[in-house]
Amino acid sequence: MTKKTILKSVTVNLVTLFLFCLLITPAVQAKVFNAKTFTLDNGLEVVVVENDRAPVITHMIWYKVGAADEIAGFSGMAHYLEHLLFKGTEKVASGDFSKIVKQNGGNDNAFTSYDYTAYFQSISNDHLEKMMEMEADRMMNAKPPATHYTSEKNVVLEERRQNTENDPRALFNEQMRSMLFVNHPYGTPIIGWMDEIKTYEWKDVKEFYDKWYAPNNAVLVISGAVTVGQVKKLAEKTYGTLPRKDIPKRNRPVLPPSIAETELHMEHSSIHQASFQRSYLVPSYATNRKDALALDILQEILSGGPTARLYKSLVIEQKIAISAGLSYSSDGLDYGSLWIYGKPTKYKTLTDVKNALMIEIQKVIDNGVTEQEVFDAIRRVQDSAVYNRDSLAGPAMIIGRGLTTGQNLDSIENWPEDIAAITVQDVQNAAQKYLNSHSPWIRAPISGFISPKILEGETK
Amino acid sequence: MTKKTILKSVTVNLVTLFLFCLLITPAVQAKVFNAKTFTLDNGLEVVVVENDRAPVITHMIWYKVGAADEIAGFSGMAHYLEHLLFKGTEKVASGDFSKIVKQNGGNDNAFTSYDYTAYFQSISNDHLEKMMEMEADRMMNAKPPATHYTSEKNVVLEERRQNTENDPRALFNEQMRSMLFVNHPYGTPIIGWMDEIKTYEWKDVKEFYDKWYAPNNAVLVISGAVTVGQVKKLAEKTYGTLPRKDIPKRNRPVLPPSIAETELHMEHSSIHQASFQRSYLVPSYATNRKDALALDILQEILSGGPTARLYKSLVIEQKIAISAGLSYSSDGLDYGSLWIYGKPTKYKTLTDVKNALMIEIQKVIDNGVTEQEVFDAIRRVQDSAVYNRDSLAGPAMIIGRGLTTGQNLDSIENWPEDIAAITVQDVQNAAQKYLNSHSPWIRAPISGFISPKILEGETK
Repeated sequence: MTKKTILKSVTVNLVTLFLFCLLITPAVQAKVFNAKTFTLDNGLEVVVVENDRAPVITHMIWYKVGAADEIAGFSGMAHYLEHLLFKGTEKVASGDFSKIVKQNGGNDNAFTSYDYTAYFQSISNDHLEKMMEMEADRMMNAKPPATHYTSEKNVVLEERRQNTENDPRALFNEQMRSMLFVNHPYGTPIIGWMDEIKTYEWKDVKEFYDKWYAPNNAVLVISGAVTVGQVKKLAEKTYGTLPRKDIPKRNRPVLPPSIAETELHMEHSSIHQASFQRSYLVPSYATNRKDALALDILQEILSGGPTARLYKSLVIEQKIAISAGLSYSSDGLDYGSLWIYGKPTKYKTLTDVKNALMIEIQKVIDNGVTEQEVFDAIRRVQDSAVYNRDSLAGPAMIIGRGLTTGQNLDSIENWPEDIAAITVQDVQNAAQKYLNSHSPWIRAPISGFISPKILEGETK
Repeated sequence: MTKKTILKSVTVNLVTLFLFCLLITPAVQAKVFNAKTFTLDNGLEVVVVENDRAPVITHMIWYKVGAADEIAGFSGMAHYLEHLLFKGTEKVASGDFSKIVKQNGGNDNAFTSYDYTAYFQSISNDHLEKMMEMEADRMMNAKPPATHYTSEKNVVLEERRQNTENDPRALFNEQMRSMLFVNHPYGTPIIGWMDEIKTYEWKDVKEFYDKWYAPNNAVLVISGAVTVGQVKKLAEKTYGTLPRKDIPKRNRPVLPPSIAETELHMEHSSIHQASFQRSYLVPSYATNRKDALALDILQEILSGGPTARLYKSLVIEQKIAISAGLSYSSDGLDYGSLWIYGKPTKYKTLTDVKNALMIEIQKVIDNGVTEQEVFDAIRRVQDSAVYNRDSLAGPAMIIGRGLTTGQNLDSIENWPEDIAAITVQDVQNAAQKYLNSHSPWIRAPISGFISPKILEGETK
């Protein structure tokens, strides 16, 4: 229920964080999930993770389409469509989908990212058929009443106002992102630009829906107390009746090179704590799995908890910062990004924090990391994976996200082995390749400096 | 001939500069050109500027389409198409168009910008019919031989390599522009991104051509020794036979706000002179004519020659810079941009130049400009207009550009009156509105710092 509440309030922004936590997930055994898979005649890929500890299931449908597939000028459409898919079909009245789930003791939600959109319900296993029936229905038969076009748009606009427009840090992050990902949809916020959300109409959204929502562009993942045989029977009966479509190629432009390092500076009167952040373009699991695994370990060594390098050095030892870390976003179908960040103590400046962070990065580039650090990091990320494997929604999240962003079931199942194979040298190589100011950049990193604005009459 | 040579070598980059020189052009009389105009039944707008000083004409066809109308992922297509339109039709073999013009003592060329594409010939007036016939033919019947698809693409790629890829300043400018114009085609270079130019094929280009090239999406401007009666007869006979098309709406996205001031820093070993530049988002003639006129006068006061404020203050008096100026680009169908720039002397830094420039801008914001400065500026821009009015190609350039970027013939003809009406207050208001760091930005300005890179073993 907590999880559901989180997802409700975050549809866009926090989902990334949530998924991020799940990233370092698959568990310690050779095969993480022992997932079983089959494909229906209409192209729907189905994955089942059997787990009979409790008579419940998570039923998730993942579409290989997201904000990055939107047409220029129509930003936020994938997310707006996700909202409208709760507003009914011919058979199910607006709002009834969630109501039925709730009446049966379950919970449901959905989320949109750059490369995927997903809908899920967690509910007792005797309701699986009903879930499949309703989800198959809204894959192709959505028919929101016209009154909801505007009202739901207002919901989205309000969501954007609260989470972004009224938050200078969020606007700042959006601007940084737009400058890192030039000429690329990853530079556009998933929720869309305010002025664009306002303009599109249901007919535009419907076109997008008709184009991308189809069984052969989806992955169904079910985890919980159900057998693959039962799922197969039900899937054929429900999703199996849907027709296949011609799905267009997902276009992802190549980022043009940028050669100049960029700094963004913002002073804002509603900011009370200064902060520094610096973003780098790096690979994702989809574009370079080996380097992505190494960056996961680098992240753990530099930022995995209070004994990690950045916190230890900047916060505990040097007392330059009140927080410091590194965050790696690895789930792009295209590129990944990596951020380092820190907040200065009262007596230090943003430049002090930046310099101290850069020294720590340079140490990795020049001297690498230790065997012990890599060993501990691998153990920690594997440990944290156990928790997710044993949860109900965890496996469905990891498998769905992986399969919609260029991975296959084998690579997902083999993650523990692959991460365990990362060496000291791999980690240093990755740092040298992507974080070294002396190499030519594909896109030069962007540094952001956020400070309180001291108004006249105030003192610092 | 000189003019032609310039255009040849610049198809994209310098054209802007060239047009920019022409911007402050229409002349001192109430009506600048006394242009005559009519529209053919198929929608082709025709403008004639009679001028019988010599038996020559400039024949220009302007299309209301440019790089800003390209689809995401297909950058540079408008310009590539312009190249291919010299490669023949059913009736005229590849290369013959220019050959015929040359054989008859004329010259021809073409250029592509964000909001328009234009083709022109300057030639003796007895060849006008032939020009119209050939230009009408290539409006709809282009058929470049397949061998040219690749060879012409290589020409464009080489053009980009020479003008941009091998020039760190050009790459830097491209990056600055992409960060000012986020989510907007003005942030994409007209020639296109290297990786995208390589990918599209003639079928994609043909689709673009078929969509936008039509008499009802073009303006024909003829200046020189010809009467409107003669033009009408010939236009009906040539262009008049072409069918009208359904022309799509030109989509121009709204720029999302950016609140953080941005700095770009580049050190490069092939740079020998440091330079500073700062770009602001401002209106164009199309979006706010009154403010655009005021910005034209501001430009003249701050940067119109060696007695202008920036040069006088930074170069002559303070000896901080070896050059300093302000440049206003006002011909966007959407937004305009304004740049201030300067290069430090040997003993000064980029920050010295930046600070000195900002002080001069702040002086205008705080104290405005003088009556005398505005009076002189108006006189100078009107004077420089006379030169262009009396040239052969000048009027066709100004009228064509105006009519394809949201102006009408009246506003073009009335430019001298309108610019003369600009007051001291208008200039100060414009500076306060668009250049003041204490107002909220629509898009915060971007500052660029370019420095030589001192390699190991070198001394500064």
